[in-house]
Amino acid sequence: MLNLDLSNVAQFLPGGWRTGQEPGLRKAHDYVLGGTGAGGEYTGWVRLPADYDREEFDRIQKAAAKIRSDSKALVVIGIGGSYLGARAVIETLTSNNYNLTHKDGPAVYFAGNGLSADAMNEVIELVKDVDFSVNVISKSGTTTEPAVAFRIFKALLEEKYGKEGAKGRIYATTDAKRGALKGLADKEGYETFVVPDAVGGRYSVLTAVGLLPIAAAGVDIDALMSGAREEMELLAKPGMDNPAWQYAAARHALYDAGKRIEILAGYEPSFRFFGEWWKQLFGESEGKQGKGLFPASVEFTADLHSMGQYIQQGERLMIETVVRFDTARSKITIPDDPENVDGLNFLSGRSLGFVAEQAMRGTILAHVDGGVPNILLTAPARDERSLGGLIYFFEFACGLSGYLLEVNPFDQPGVEAYKNNMYALLGKPGYEAQKAALEKRLDS
Amino acid sequence: MLNLDLSNVAQFLPGGWRTGQEPGLRKAHDYVLGGTGAGGEYTGWVRLPADYDREEFDRIQKAAAKIRSDSKALVVIGIGGSYLGARAVIETLTSNNYNLTHKDGPAVYFAGNGLSADAMNEVIELVKDVDFSVNVISKSGTTTEPAVAFRIFKALLEEKYGKEGAKGRIYATTDAKRGALKGLADKEGYETFVVPDAVGGRYSVLTAVGLLPIAAAGVDIDALMSGAREEMELLAKPGMDNPAWQYAAARHALYDAGKRIEILAGYEPSFRFFGEWWKQLFGESEGKQGKGLFPASVEFTADLHSMGQYIQQGERLMIETVVRFDTARSKITIPDDPENVDGLNFLSGRSLGFVAEQAMRGTILAHVDGGVPNILLTAPARDERSLGGLIYFFEFACGLSGYLLEVNPFDQPGVEAYKNNMYALLGKPGYEAQKAALEKRLDS
Repeated sequence: MLNLDLSNVAQFLPGGWRTGQEPGLRKAHDYVLGGTGAGGEYTGWVRLPADYDREEFDRIQKAAAKIRSDSKALVVIGIGGSYLGARAVIETLTSNNYNLTHKDGPAVYFAGNGLSADAMNEVIELVKDVDFSVNVISKSGTTTEPAVAFRIFKALLEEKYGKEGAKGRIYATTDAKRGALKGLADKEGYETFVVPDAVGGRYSVLTAVGLLPIAAAGVDIDALMSGAREEMELLAKPGMDNPAWQYAAARHALYDAGKRIEILAGYEPSFRFFGEWWKQLFGESEGKQGKGLFPASVEFTADLHSMGQYIQQGERLMIETVVRFDTARSKITIPDDPENVDGLNFLSGRSLGFVAEQAMRGTILAHVDGGVPNILLTAPARDERSLGGLIYFFEFACGLSGYLLEVNPFDQPGVEAYKNNMYALLGKPGYEAQKAALEKRLDS
Repeated sequence: MLNLDLSNVAQFLPGGWRTGQEPGLRKAHDYVLGGTGAGGEYTGWVRLPADYDREEFDRIQKAAAKIRSDSKALVVIGIGGSYLGARAVIETLTSNNYNLTHKDGPAVYFAGNGLSADAMNEVIELVKDVDFSVNVISKSGTTTEPAVAFRIFKALLEEKYGKEGAKGRIYATTDAKRGALKGLADKEGYETFVVPDAVGGRYSVLTAVGLLPIAAAGVDIDALMSGAREEMELLAKPGMDNPAWQYAAARHALYDAGKRIEILAGYEPSFRFFGEWWKQLFGESEGKQGKGLFPASVEFTADLHSMGQYIQQGERLMIETVVRFDTARSKITIPDDPENVDGLNFLSGRSLGFVAEQAMRGTILAHVDGGVPNILLTAPARDERSLGGLIYFFEFACGLSGYLLEVNPFDQPGVEAYKNNMYALLGKPGYEAQKAALEKRLDS
């Protein structure tokens, strides 16, 4: 389904770079599939495209249909993996301007992923005069950013629709059994969906976490899951012809050879937030114990006129992974100009897609010539099935990669550091000693 | 006006790191101010905030007023420095959702900065049924992406308003005297504005290149220029207490100490494209001869839940520069919850801005503890004057930085590589030999 082209990698690596990694990959593959490696308790995403809860999936589709029929806007409250996957899929499959261009379904506004009062006031302004619903996504219900946003949008809903009316417009995606949000939802009677214990935030896009907002935006989540399932079946087979093995092997070998940055490049503006999702997936899975490729992303050809210079001639620390969609959705034919003012009449009658394709081929060769190894991943089309496949491909390859790097690809111990400092500075009960110590440092 | 805090840098550097760089900075300062260093012919931006063309500035304001009165949309056609500055300023000062939330003025759509047919068709759909104008920005008029877009939107305007009507809706920002676009504009009678010879694309935001779209969006460009001018006057004074010297010295010393990535962090979603502008400025100025800090950007606190793990515990190659706006625009007060479901009642009655401030302070300490040097730049407010100052600060510091690194901070030789390959693969006359060679490589 996906096609992985590593022809522009080998020249940067010693001979035998593939076969040398086979034992490590075999072990990693078993860890991922069997849940027997570090963090194995978080490998619930591996079989998810086949083994998901059909009853819940059906409720997701019904809830999405209800939201589409009774709401002009959906406020999705969540941070990190609780918004990036949904935003990535919605934008990639529709447009980075979804909220300008959507027709039948609701606008989808993401809130509770930061602490900007201006941004929150903006969402309030956008929804207060229209019918809207809220999907609050938090395993615990106590993470600061989404919890604060939920206090505010819950109050707004209750003011608008009354307490009873609001209940029918709040969807809580949270722990199946425990936690603050689960407790509240049960007490109030919100419809609830599950953040599974065995699936970490950055691997959660194909659970209710991602699927409810995605479906509410009109995306065919059945096709998304089928695409993921097909890829799952392909990647379950061990061996060096497994494209996830190849991708993991290539990036790991390049890391061993001294590369330190991986740039994900797309040629569609709608792909920007897929890059953000991918950065969380790889950065959070691998960036620990002082290791890992630093993940960055670019939008070509736009960024060939900004980051292009650095990529071509800056520090030689980068590898580039290009995601390409094989079939265009729409077409632009370049008109002829009888006076050929811009000198581009050699393109008259050509499609813009043809030009984009040559730009991509030319850029890959230019970057390779400049010393940047290139990995090219082609998906059939910018559609649900391909994107489901891409998501699963990167998730699986990321699990393998983490194990090759000898880290736990499923934890994120470093995320606590800022939270603890923030709680202390905010005066959270129990953090008194830390607060005093931090303020002393800040005042000095 | 701006405040630069380097208190979290020194511990990562050898003693005397500041004074050791004084001679280099003094030389760089003279190069930048005098135009006597490499690329000195492109230092026209240095005195721009004081010496700009008042007659043209006045015409820009009149054109902007006309666009605001006769257009519901403005299509800005340009790539690289010909769109990033305008987009950065408009979004930072209004919202990253400007096109959803703008009230009096036109929507501003950026086109011709890529080769996606879907993205271009989307802009066509968004403008075809409303009154719109076009600002085409290209020094030569022959760069592929904007030239193709201009063919299409010019035809759309002529179809809608007739050839005569279209002329009054096309604004060409281009070379003062020569080039394909200048020739066409003169012949057709478009109003023209100047891309000065002495100002490169990435330093052009305070010329007509940036100012016309910015003013059309309702931003006060007088205040923007005043802010830049104040900063210009401050930074013109040589010495180690010059904040641009300090920023350049710190990042250069950290580069010498082995750091390879600089992350620009903001706490406002509207700041995202300022990060893109900044990446072009520094990446394109410094990323050459195998040198330079790789520029990346993040949006906090959102990305503390995606890139945060890597920043805290991944490879120790990063420095972090935080841009903070001192005064909030709007306020959110966190409501009390009698049942304290989320356990956040210690924040009841607090403003969200207070929480954001503690998050920032806590994050800086956490990252410093994790081995990431931190530079904190505080601007008074998210307003025109501060942003003008920030733009000039980064431009000036970037010039100094480039000279410290012993590169030409004003050229971009690497950008030609992809273009030449693309032209060859597209069959541009004169590239026949290169085309054959490239296709042979691609087929092998």
